[in-house]
Amino acid sequence: MDQRTSDLPLRPTDRTRVKRIPQRGRYDRQTIYGILDEALVCHVGFVVDGSPVVIPMVLARDGDRIIIHGSTASRLIRTLSQDGGVDVSVAVTLLDGLVVSRAALDNSMNYRSVVLFGRAFPISDLREKVSALEAVVEHVIPGRWQEARRPNEQELKATTVLALPIEEASAKVRTGPPKDDEDDHVLPIWAGEIPLRLASLPPVSDPQLGDDIPIPRSVRGFREQRVRGC
Amino acid sequence: MDQRTSDLPLRPTDRTRVKRIPQRGRYDRQTIYGILDEALVCHVGFVVDGSPVVIPMVLARDGDRIIIHGSTASRLIRTLSQDGGVDVSVAVTLLDGLVVSRAALDNSMNYRSVVLFGRAFPISDLREKVSALEAVVEHVIPGRWQEARRPNEQELKATTVLALPIEEASAKVRTGPPKDDEDDHVLPIWAGEIPLRLASLPPVSDPQLGDDIPIPRSVRGFREQRVRGC
Repeated sequence: MDQRTSDLPLRPTDRTRVKRIPQRGRYDRQTIYGILDEALVCHVGFVVDGSPVVIPMVLARDGDRIIIHGSTASRLIRTLSQDGGVDVSVAVTLLDGLVVSRAALDNSMNYRSVVLFGRAFPISDLREKVSALEAVVEHVIPGRWQEARRPNEQELKATTVLALPIEEASAKVRTGPPKDDEDDHVLPIWAGEIPLRLASLPPVSDPQLGDDIPIPRSVRGFREQRVRGC
Repeated sequence: MDQRTSDLPLRPTDRTRVKRIPQRGRYDRQTIYGILDEALVCHVGFVVDGSPVVIPMVLARDGDRIIIHGSTASRLIRTLSQDGGVDVSVAVTLLDGLVVSRAALDNSMNYRSVVLFGRAFPISDLREKVSALEAVVEHVIPGRWQEARRPNEQELKATTVLALPIEEASAKVRTGPPKDDEDDHVLPIWAGEIPLRLASLPPVSDPQLGDDIPIPRSVRGFREQRVRGC
């Protein structure tokens, strides 16, 4: 699914260039795609009657685009998929740790975030739509697509799948220890980082599941590798 | 800090009423405040030149309002704190688990989210500003304010603190097992939930920290209780 990815860094625009603490800005696709691939949820912002609306959505990356989807009946999806598309801003944030400084106002967080601008377009070609939905399922739980019942025609009709090109985007990354003022280093106050990770707990079977159906490979694999940012 | 909280549920408006799957909508302050209190990060959406922008920010709840803050020099903060305020939408999302269904398109997530609309106003009164910054520090790591060096006049001047009243907001909550179609229950496919939690790893001391400074009470306390949503 990655055949269309490009190695060229993205050209910063006035709205994607990181101005506050510019050394935290990243414009290479490897960093941006790594953050998108690790995230489970994105926050999509758009404008309705001149006012902003921000809604959380599941995301996937499929090559050089982000896939979001939802019920064709949803107002949100109808708004995003109107003719010609609408301007959206998508933010993805992975929280890696709390930075605990000596000075209260020097506290910070370690994080990796992406902010993206563009317009999402509905995927109408049926094969492409199924392939994008496969990307969504595989993004969240690798290997699950093979195990699950595939969508039927009616389900595909009831689902709108939107593709948002990754063209105008940047990442912002903070890592490492606190950055207290030199003067504060003499204070007898602890400082450091509390690393945070998104961890998975043991799977809980559906109460309606038959007794003889074991936890599948995809879910076991997720458990093993999925201690990641949130 | 909670003296101004109210017990009255919020009145849903056209933009906060949950329309898709309305039974997931919550309008009581207890649910909304519980979600805000557990979150470390919010996503703030606003409009610049007619286009949406979404940015992650640290949040705190202080009574019936949300506190966000940042450098007075930041363009984001200057935009949000302009005279009269600007319309914002704030989304907070806690991811509680992956819902793994038999049918690929019935996959879902368990989550608790809040979407809020309003205008943020700068807090200019110095005592109120310090109290709001205390709320932010205590929101992230309870007990830390007492241990840290308090902000000085210069730091307070360089920081803008914004208060956003919690008046137009709603929560959306999904819990429980998958909701596969009845017909799919006979399929020999595992279904269930993978619970997710934001977990903290052992604290890492600042390399510049003196040898004789132990990990403080606030950080130890955070470690003990902070396995929470993300």
